[in-house]
Amino acid sequence: MSRVYNFSAGPSMLPQAVLEKAASEMLDYQGSGQSVMEMSHRSKTYQAIIDEAEALLREVLNIPDNYKVLFLQGGGSTQFAMIPLNLKKNGKADYVITGQWAKKAAAEARKYLDVNVVASSADTTFTYIPKLDPATFSKDADYFYICLNNTIYGTHYSPEQLPDTGDIPLVTDASSCILSEPMDVSKFGLIFAGAQKNMGPAGVTVVIIRDDLIREVPETVPTMLTYKIHADNGSMYNTPPCYSIYMVKLVLEWLKNDIGGVEKMHEINKAKAAKLYEFLDNSKLFKGTVEKDSRSLMNVPFVTGDKDLDAKFVAEAAKAGLVNLKGHRTVGGMRASIYNAMPMEGVDALIDFMKKFEAENA
Amino acid sequence: MSRVYNFSAGPSMLPQAVLEKAASEMLDYQGSGQSVMEMSHRSKTYQAIIDEAEALLREVLNIPDNYKVLFLQGGGSTQFAMIPLNLKKNGKADYVITGQWAKKAAAEARKYLDVNVVASSADTTFTYIPKLDPATFSKDADYFYICLNNTIYGTHYSPEQLPDTGDIPLVTDASSCILSEPMDVSKFGLIFAGAQKNMGPAGVTVVIIRDDLIREVPETVPTMLTYKIHADNGSMYNTPPCYSIYMVKLVLEWLKNDIGGVEKMHEINKAKAAKLYEFLDNSKLFKGTVEKDSRSLMNVPFVTGDKDLDAKFVAEAAKAGLVNLKGHRTVGGMRASIYNAMPMEGVDALIDFMKKFEAENA
Repeated sequence: MSRVYNFSAGPSMLPQAVLEKAASEMLDYQGSGQSVMEMSHRSKTYQAIIDEAEALLREVLNIPDNYKVLFLQGGGSTQFAMIPLNLKKNGKADYVITGQWAKKAAAEARKYLDVNVVASSADTTFTYIPKLDPATFSKDADYFYICLNNTIYGTHYSPEQLPDTGDIPLVTDASSCILSEPMDVSKFGLIFAGAQKNMGPAGVTVVIIRDDLIREVPETVPTMLTYKIHADNGSMYNTPPCYSIYMVKLVLEWLKNDIGGVEKMHEINKAKAAKLYEFLDNSKLFKGTVEKDSRSLMNVPFVTGDKDLDAKFVAEAAKAGLVNLKGHRTVGGMRASIYNAMPMEGVDALIDFMKKFEAENA
Repeated sequence: MSRVYNFSAGPSMLPQAVLEKAASEMLDYQGSGQSVMEMSHRSKTYQAIIDEAEALLREVLNIPDNYKVLFLQGGGSTQFAMIPLNLKKNGKADYVITGQWAKKAAAEARKYLDVNVVASSADTTFTYIPKLDPATFSKDADYFYICLNNTIYGTHYSPEQLPDTGDIPLVTDASSCILSEPMDVSKFGLIFAGAQKNMGPAGVTVVIIRDDLIREVPETVPTMLTYKIHADNGSMYNTPPCYSIYMVKLVLEWLKNDIGGVEKMHEINKAKAAKLYEFLDNSKLFKGTVEKDSRSLMNVPFVTGDKDLDAKFVAEAAKAGLVNLKGHRTVGGMRASIYNAMPMEGVDALIDFMKKFEAENA
């Protein structure tokens, strides 16, 4: 067996120790005589798994008691509808458009309420986080929506760039940065994240929602798209994606015990990203595409400026065991997604390969 | 390692060979250097997996070309909303109430259209499939809904009990019987099934839908609840539950190659159920609760008539490695779910244990 360094934007690498543990428990979870996939979700054994996943997430992210943690299905795209359907009161929401996912979220919200686009970085194909002017914020918005880390474009809100929305709940898509850095959860009304970048496999979406935002909704809202239903039933209104939640538990155990928590993870992520950005800033061939104050620690897009050379790079890198480096189809070039599970060795291997490629193609 | 016989109603047993294969491929799927959990869903390797899952399902169920196969999230409970939201035209639908799941489906549908309850077996706590009188069918229903196998109550529509709805699309929840028997798919407009009984782990729902029922929907329908979106994007509008779909592929390979297809599976299932029902029909202590012409091959509820004795049986059986035999909380007693993955040896072990228990508690 020869494992590759997988720079996919998601689904992406999982810690090898987590995969080994999952494989070892596949036929018999802790002496139960069953795979986690085979367990009744109403069994005590499975209840302990989902409870532990929630407890670990609360611990590593320091989630306050007045927030519920939900394990849902349907990905971020389902959240794009659930958020307006559940949070609508006055019928207006503010959105900052920093990429395709924020744009899709706003488009879905427009089905249900008035969307005020506070700012956008579409003018430069989303290479920066726009400066926000509180004077443009709606006074009576039901919520204020941002995408915290933009997977496709490689931008990320620094703490200084986060808007102060006062009493208006700040809602964020944290799919591609959750668990990569400490978060002050109390600054948000609702945080959601698909698992398939930093938390586990695709198929489960975590929603962290402040109690007061869990409300009765109009009867026309589908039951399964109602936060209150899932909150009242401990994410077990119907059969949850049991195995994906178990994998999240394993990843959280790794993050806590092997890495030492989110602060430690953040230090490692900063060191990994710094190496790669430093190389890009000094390279004669490769160039990062994002403004420095908006750079993501997780997704690093770069180009050579020559499409054919980009394609050659992606193909040769794959042969060298550095896979999925092709940029998103809407951007082109390359993108290295270096999530939590990507070890420093993977980043070093990428930089070494880029140096070699640069020397050969100068 | 000591595996148990797991009679859970779902999630439930998976074939041991499937779990072994999944464990062996966990860190490196067919030389890709990645787990299936880590693969980009846009990669060729993953596309081949989902394509193969669909092709196998089409083959074993003999699905006609004018039907699409969708792999969705959200379970049957999400289908309860998607069906009326997508199939609504005249604003009326017929439902047969044969248990809690049909009841929940009808309640969700009532949010969006008029529900005509054609028949119900609620009078006896759903111990039979009601006789249907075509005179009570709506002439202008958008669809006619049945739950093909009732997991909780252990009833199942025989081919003779299936309604002839003419031009009105017959829609069915086949969650707990799909792949257990041949189905004439062409008799249905839409078939859906959560994977977690006969197809794989929880977290993926298969929808088999006739082309003409895949329609434009009103703008207010959430994008993710629109069949057309998923059909137009080959179930990849957003990141699908990749690993669950891979597990479905492995189960279908097992069904085709190890078992020999759905007809063979049906023979085995009939033999397993016949043994258990025969024992129940001749037992002095245990009694099946379902009318003979409505019996399910998959879920076999039974009672002793004494609550304390039921509880004793469930507890002692678990100690003997026969787990999850407790009946649903709304019914009480016992229920043995004997899905495809339950080997004849498991049924034999259960009957042997029941004989012993009967002798000891006569």
